[in-house]
Amino acid sequence: MTTTEAAARESKDPRDLPDVRGLRVGVLGGTGEQGRGLAKRLALAGIAVTLGSRDAERAQQAASALAPTAPVQPTGADNATCAAQSDIVIAAVPWDGHAELLSGLAGELAGKILVDCVNPLGFDKQGCYAISVAEGSAAQQAAQILPESRVVGAFHHVSAVLLLDDEVSSLATDVLVLGDDREATDTVQALAACIPGMRGIYGGRLRNCGQVEAFTANLISMNRRYKAHAGLRITDV
Amino acid sequence: MTTTEAAARESKDPRDLPDVRGLRVGVLGGTGEQGRGLAKRLALAGIAVTLGSRDAERAQQAASALAPTAPVQPTGADNATCAAQSDIVIAAVPWDGHAELLSGLAGELAGKILVDCVNPLGFDKQGCYAISVAEGSAAQQAAQILPESRVVGAFHHVSAVLLLDDEVSSLATDVLVLGDDREATDTVQALAACIPGMRGIYGGRLRNCGQVEAFTANLISMNRRYKAHAGLRITDV
Repeated sequence: MTTTEAAARESKDPRDLPDVRGLRVGVLGGTGEQGRGLAKRLALAGIAVTLGSRDAERAQQAASALAPTAPVQPTGADNATCAAQSDIVIAAVPWDGHAELLSGLAGELAGKILVDCVNPLGFDKQGCYAISVAEGSAAQQAAQILPESRVVGAFHHVSAVLLLDDEVSSLATDVLVLGDDREATDTVQALAACIPGMRGIYGGRLRNCGQVEAFTANLISMNRRYKAHAGLRITDV
Repeated sequence: MTTTEAAARESKDPRDLPDVRGLRVGVLGGTGEQGRGLAKRLALAGIAVTLGSRDAERAQQAASALAPTAPVQPTGADNATCAAQSDIVIAAVPWDGHAELLSGLAGELAGKILVDCVNPLGFDKQGCYAISVAEGSAAQQAAQILPESRVVGAFHHVSAVLLLDDEVSSLATDVLVLGDDREATDTVQALAACIPGMRGIYGGRLRNCGQVEAFTANLISMNRRYKAHAGLRITDV
């Protein structure tokens, strides 16, 4: 990057985000709670969504039941087809199968924005805790596995229960969006902002994603103590 | 703990917090920005405060200039005297000197609540990042050094600039309070709630404090991008 380009980037209004209404969003792990929840809200917001699953038929069934009132009906497909036909792909898979799934889709995901929302967490009798990740975070692991993709971390803290609850019309929460590619983080911020009540806030570089993933353990501790669905708002932004 | 005690603790209303108005709060590193900021706001809220510093005279000078309109004027002392005469002690020292300072005060801090607000952070040309801590977090390091103290993590994310700004009457932020001793975390939550605009929210056990400390790097990234003093609010709590 030249000095002029760096200066232009630095001075760009961080609230000036691209139009993402024409993009198709794929959701790997789209039949799980988190994946279905995000897919449902995006579909209701008018975004074209493809649910991905190992089993295409299961994905199609989940898609057709997801959001009957959505302007564009979600479709379902096997994970590879989902990745291949989408412009942005959200990985909403369990931490256990994270590396394996992404390794198998490196070709389909090349050149695309891969949104990682995976939280490496463990549970014991004292509650929830963050698992240490060799690469620093799930998102950094994804970036290592997918050198030709544009990896962004986002949607870590959104409650699947609230996403799937038809009584909840607005999600009072900010989505922290992390990554090293400004155009990619801007795009994912815009995607988050499509969901009523949500904002997409730039949250730092990918090397600072580990603590954002791990913070989900704190939200789970709060949920237990306060019997709540705790979410985040960033003040003064 | 017996099963009955555990059940009583589990059912206790998390918003029912103790009265802390009669306690004296010591602030180690009380002449630094974060320490002075917290001390100032606590003094203005009517809490008796002692600033601690290596140099007693410097502490006294900082204390007398801190909050001329406070109901109870802050006092200053060397760190050991500050720790010995306070009921709750806040460690607001740089990460570099954290272990050394606490090791030297283990006697004075025995039996007391030690509030750790230290953020182990590094800076390079790409901005701010979290430093890996062998014990898991600064607060866990404090707990190892001070086995006879009741270590609580809190006040990590509060902007020193806002704390010290006389134009700012209310701090729109939630303070996450972490620890394994319920009475101690309740007490520190009550202390945070004395400051207008602040709430003290239970944020989990000490083993989940590392990501809360590290999250300060994300807030600093947001501050830079949005030219803001980003803070946290927890929704649905």
